[in-house]
Formats: sequence, C-alpha cells, structure tokens
Amino acid sequence: MRGAVLYGPRDVRYEERPAPTLSEPTDAIIRLAATCICGSDLWPYRGIQPVTQPTPMGHEYCGIVEEVGSAVRTIKPGQFVVGSFFASDNTCAICQAGYQSRCVNLQYVGANGAQAPYLRVPLADGTLVATPDVPPDDLIPSLLAASDVLGTGWFAAVAAEAGPGKTVAIVGDGAVGLCAVIAARQLGADRIIIFSRHADRQQLAREFGATDIVTERGDAGVARVKALTDGLGAHSVVEAVGTQEAMLQAIRATRPGGHVGFVGVPHGVQLPGEELFYAEIHLHGGPAPVRRFLPELIDRIWKRQIAPGKVFDLTLPLADVAAGYRAMDERRAIKVLLRP
Amino acid sequence: MRGAVLYGPRDVRYEERPAPTLSEPTDAIIRLAATCICGSDLWPYRGIQPVTQPTPMGHEYCGIVEEVGSAVRTIKPGQFVVGSFFASDNTCAICQAGYQSRCVNLQYVGANGAQAPYLRVPLADGTLVATPDVPPDDLIPSLLAASDVLGTGWFAAVAAEAGPGKTVAIVGDGAVGLCAVIAARQLGADRIIIFSRHADRQQLAREFGATDIVTERGDAGVARVKALTDGLGAHSVVEAVGTQEAMLQAIRATRPGGHVGFVGVPHGVQLPGEELFYAEIHLHGGPAPVRRFLPELIDRIWKRQIAPGKVFDLTLPLADVAAGYRAMDERRAIKVLLRP
Repeated sequence: MRGAVLYGPRDVRYEERPAPTLSEPTDAIIRLAATCICGSDLWPYRGIQPVTQPTPMGHEYCGIVEEVGSAVRTIKPGQFVVGSFFASDNTCAICQAGYQSRCVNLQYVGANGAQAPYLRVPLADGTLVATPDVPPDDLIPSLLAASDVLGTGWFAAVAAEAGPGKTVAIVGDGAVGLCAVIAARQLGADRIIIFSRHADRQQLAREFGATDIVTERGDAGVARVKALTDGLGAHSVVEAVGTQEAMLQAIRATRPGGHVGFVGVPHGVQLPGEELFYAEIHLHGGPAPVRRFLPELIDRIWKRQIAPGKVFDLTLPLADVAAGYRAMDERRAIKVLLRP
Repeated sequence: MRGAVLYGPRDVRYEERPAPTLSEPTDAIIRLAATCICGSDLWPYRGIQPVTQPTPMGHEYCGIVEEVGSAVRTIKPGQFVVGSFFASDNTCAICQAGYQSRCVNLQYVGANGAQAPYLRVPLADGTLVATPDVPPDDLIPSLLAASDVLGTGWFAAVAAEAGPGKTVAIVGDGAVGLCAVIAARQLGADRIIIFSRHADRQQLAREFGATDIVTERGDAGVARVKALTDGLGAHSVVEAVGTQEAMLQAIRATRPGGHVGFVGVPHGVQLPGEELFYAEIHLHGGPAPVRRFLPELIDRIWKRQIAPGKVFDLTLPLADVAAGYRAMDERRAIKVLLRP
C-alpha cells in the first residue's frame, strides 16, 4: 500500500509502505473510510519538532474492521469503527477513571501512520467504538472528527467545566477550538466567546454556536473578555494553541475560581507559579482521553445533533496528501480530509 | 498599644504602635484572644521577601469584638469572632462562588498587623464569623488555627479532592500540611501519606490521621508514593511548601486524572508546560478562601471533632514575639501562639 511519510521539514511523501498485519492477538486491522491532517502534524512538518528518520504520519481514523486478532472479543470484522490516537485497554484503574490517554498499557496509534488506506490498531476492544451501522457517506467527516479534534475540543470544554450559566472563552480558532465551541454549546453554556481573526473561522464558530468574537489578542484580548463579563473574566476558558502567549491569555481571561481546559500541545511553555497562585483558577488538560467521550460523540453525530465534519474545508484524495499539508501550513485550509 | 514590627532580616521588634480605630463604617475593632506567627511570615523575616519600611506583622486572629462601624449589621460588640487574613464582602459573584480570597473588594487584614492586642478588621460582616458563645480557653488555639493554617490546609485538601476511596499525599509537614492531614481525615480519605523527616511532626501527623510517612524527597519520594499506590500515584496531593522542588514532587506523585491542591506561596516556581500537559492532572490552588470554610471549621472545633490547635507547640506572651520568630526560624517550633 502507499501512505504518507515525513522525511524532513516540508518534505512529506506518498510512497510505498508495508501493509499492516496483525502483530498482537489484541490488534485489529482497519480499512480507512477517511483520514486527515492534524494541526499537531504541522509541528514536525515545519521542523519545530525534528524528525530523525522517515516517519509514517497521521493518527486520525475511522473505517471498516478488516481483521481482528485471536484475543479480540467485542470488535468484529465488518463493523464501522472510530478510535482515538491513543490505544488503551479501557479496563485499568486510570482508564476506568476516564483517562484512557494515560492508560497503563498505552500505545500511540499514530506510530503506525493513519494517513494510509489500512491501519493496525492495538488493544482493539479497548480502543475502538463501533457505530450503530455502516454510516451514510455524509456522516464520515463528522465521525472522523470524533477521532481527535472533536474529542479533544470536547475534553477541553469538559476540563474547563463549560455548562449552563457559564461564559466560556476559547483561545484558538483551529479545528480543536471550533470543536470546543460545539462542545460548549452542547454542554449548555450561556455565552461562548472565541478569539479569532479569520473571517472563515469566525463564520464557522458562529454557526457552531459562538455568541461573541474577540479579535484582540494577549492582554488586549483579556481586557475584552473582562469587559464582556462584568470585569470578572470567563468562568471557563479553553486553550487550544500550546504557546506561552495562548496559555497566559487563557489563564488571565479566567475569573478567580474558574476553570482552564488546555489541550494545545505546549511548546516552550513555562507557567509562572506566583501568577498561577494568585489567579486562583483550576487548570486541567493534556492529551484528550477521546475514548471516554466516543460513545456519546458518535451518538450525537448519528442523531445529527452536531456536525463537526464542517471543520474539514478541503477534501483531497490521499495521494495528494502533500498538497494537503501545504494548504494547512499556509492556512488556506482549517483542516484537510483525505480519502484513501 | 504595643505590637510586632519587622524592620529587616531577623529584626522584629515589639514596640509602641497606634491603637486601631474605626476608619470605615464597615470596620470592626477586635480585642485579640490570641494571635500567632505564620510560616509565610518567615519569608520577609529571613529577608527572602525584602521589607522596605518598618512593617506591622501578623494576619491570624480571633477574639472579642470591641466596637463596630455604623454600617455593620450582623457582627456585634461582645461576640467572639474568627476571621481570615483577607477581608471580603462575601456578597460579590466571586465570594458567592466560594473565592472570598479574590473578592472584588478584597483587603489584606494583615496590613493592619495582627501580632498586637487590637486589630481593625475591614468589611466586618463579610469577613468575621462568630462562635456560638465565648469559647472556653482550651478551644482558643484551635479557633485561632481556623483563621489561617486550618482553613488553608482544608482548602488544599478540598482543592485536591480528598475524599472517600482516595489516597491523599501531603508535601510539607508544617502547620498547613499537618492541618491538611486533619482535613483529609475529616473528608473521609482512605489513606493519608505525609512527607516528613521530623519525628515530632511525624508523630502529630499520625495523631491527626496520617497512615503512612515518607521520609524520601524529590524523585525518591515520588517513587515511594507510587510503590504505595500500585505504581499509579496518589489520587489527591497537597502542596504546602511553595518551592519548585515541592511543586514538581506534588505533580509527579499524582496519578493521571488526579488532583493537586497547592497552597504554599510560590517562590521562584516555574511549571514546565509540557510536563504538566502529559501529567494530565488537575491543578488548583492559591491563597485559601478561608471564609468559605469558617462556619464548618468552627462547628467541628466547637464539637471537639478536630483539635488543630495542637500545631501550636510553643506558646509565648506577645511581648516575646521576637523569641517566637527565632524558634520558628530555627525549626525549634512548628508554630508559635502569642497571648496578648
């Protein structure tokens, strides 16, 4: 088969790779209905995270189970499934507490390269969630979004304790930030503020339920959120960027006693302890335990209550994966869906 | 009257100061039954926090209301009251959410110097909580502890979500850490681990309900906590020191999805964003909103369910305040109670 392999900065190739086979009895092999490019793929693509050897890319996936290992009990060939970028047993104490992203038997599915027609998923019973039936084609983008960006935005909104009576502010207007708008709306937030300077993202944010757009950044952005909240700050703030500026903006936009949910992978972030102390906020985040939310997210997508697939504003054949990276790198696309 | 004034490193004097008078109609004047020296008083005493001018010291207090301003409605002369180091209106949105330590009308009571026979307390109705009656003398140390160390330890345990089924670990065996043991026990924690190398503090911790003592620090201490918790880490960790080492020890001793409650005033702490992200813990702390807990704490003390006053292992006349600072600085005393 052919799949995406990153060789170095801005050098992603669609090339021959060995098709995956069952290597553990708990594995499943999936034939992908769709895959996509993640904002986090841009860190190594841009050379900010160095790659030391040719690296298969991609960690978002949904599709049909082709084959399962001898120890797989609940997942069956022919099922349409969605899974997270982390494989988890879903039975250990950490999984049972809802932190499948820190499962004691954690494996990174992305190491197998999901930007390909087939993917090996470890710990299939713990990792994969089957849809009620093979989905109609128009639901595929939303189900794919559940695999990462929706699950991550949802976790961020839950970590920020978005809910009824709350004002939620969202730092980051990428696919995850936009999915956090969906989550905040579904969780019943009263008011949803997003920081955004891009007209197309602003429009999608409004469609997803944002009530206010703030174009200022940094301290000016914080001042704007305070002006919208009686001088107090938002109850719940989502951070979906991962830079020092974005983290401080999120912390400072939160009222005392409020909650920051941070899901942007931090790059060079150092949090000043004294400021965090006197801010008196709650801080929670990390790699999203997407598996915790998958059953609920699939259900909401299946019932067409949410349409996170709209974050994909460019669809390309998998063979054109390099063009997809370019489009996201140059911010011509929010998120690129790839069809094998 | 005479009170404690800090002039510079290790130069605290008991000297003539003006007796406080009502300066706002919302003030009360308290005749102190007892006051004390706080671990945080040692930062300026040791010169780590420079003092630029002679500074009245002390922020912990309980005693009899002598006089109230014309706008004070609920607090009456003759009542025995306990208050926090922060004055708060207890009516703003932030207070109502339980964060009186970030009240929109916040004032620092300690600015008035509580190591003295009389103290002016602003926002009396919001700040002070009356006891059911004038207490017997043996309850005074515990009621005084409620003013800061017990309230702070309690907040830390609540922030760490100590409770039934949980293993709680406590970094810091000072008065606040020891009070966090009391809180964890009262909140129903299954297991309470305290890091301590001092025999007297270990003994008091056990008396308060600690089940395990860990003498190792840093990564060795973390490894010990993991060994006690199936390799996972504690569910709830209290940080009551304020150094970089203590914060990292707290974060690393917490299992994924667990909670750190931090109340040690940070000095030079910088939290690495990436480590915090992958740790996937909840982090919450700051200056304790003691006022939130005072009614409950007073009730438990009144019913003799808890005896936090045991953290005072040295009692001196207020006139000997300088000797009290020396005893705490040299770790000859956990906490010094002063009798005016």
